[in-house]
Amino acid sequence: MKARVTVTLKNGVLDPQGKAIEGALGALGFDGIGSVRQGKVIDIELGETDKAAAEAKLSDMCEKLLANTVIENYHIDIL
Amino acid sequence: MKARVTVTLKNGVLDPQGKAIEGALGALGFDGIGSVRQGKVIDIELGETDKAAAEAKLSDMCEKLLANTVIENYHIDIL
Repeated sequence: MKARVTVTLKNGVLDPQGKAIEGALGALGFDGIGSVRQGKVIDIELGETDKAAAEAKLSDMCEKLLANTVIENYHIDIL
Repeated sequence: MKARVTVTLKNGVLDPQGKAIEGALGALGFDGIGSVRQGKVIDIELGETDKAAAEAKLSDMCEKLLANTVIENYHIDIL
């Protein structure tokens, strides 16, 4: 089973990477750009065959390793 | 208009970050983990109101800045 975990910064948390992209897009001549935020996407192949079990396991992985839940949100998609 | 650009490594391109996550998940006791690949997600707010125009602009941004198309694929979602 394949899954995609998306980890994004919570609102209000400073995002220097996003700001750098915003600046670079402006410098390249793209206008009308509002806020830019950058996050991570992690594609995982799991041995699980049960969707609910896979989601529980992925949620556990996010809490323990993949996301810093103080400043980041995570979202799990089973593909 | 909000859009999400997902940038992932092409198949066959080495992904040390993904490998590190794979190793760390194993060390934490998660078993049955197959391959892990890490990518980027970029959330952009655009001034455009036309969907097709926004997609064209985002595609241009990806080619010029957001993705290294030699080793990375990108996918655009208008939210």
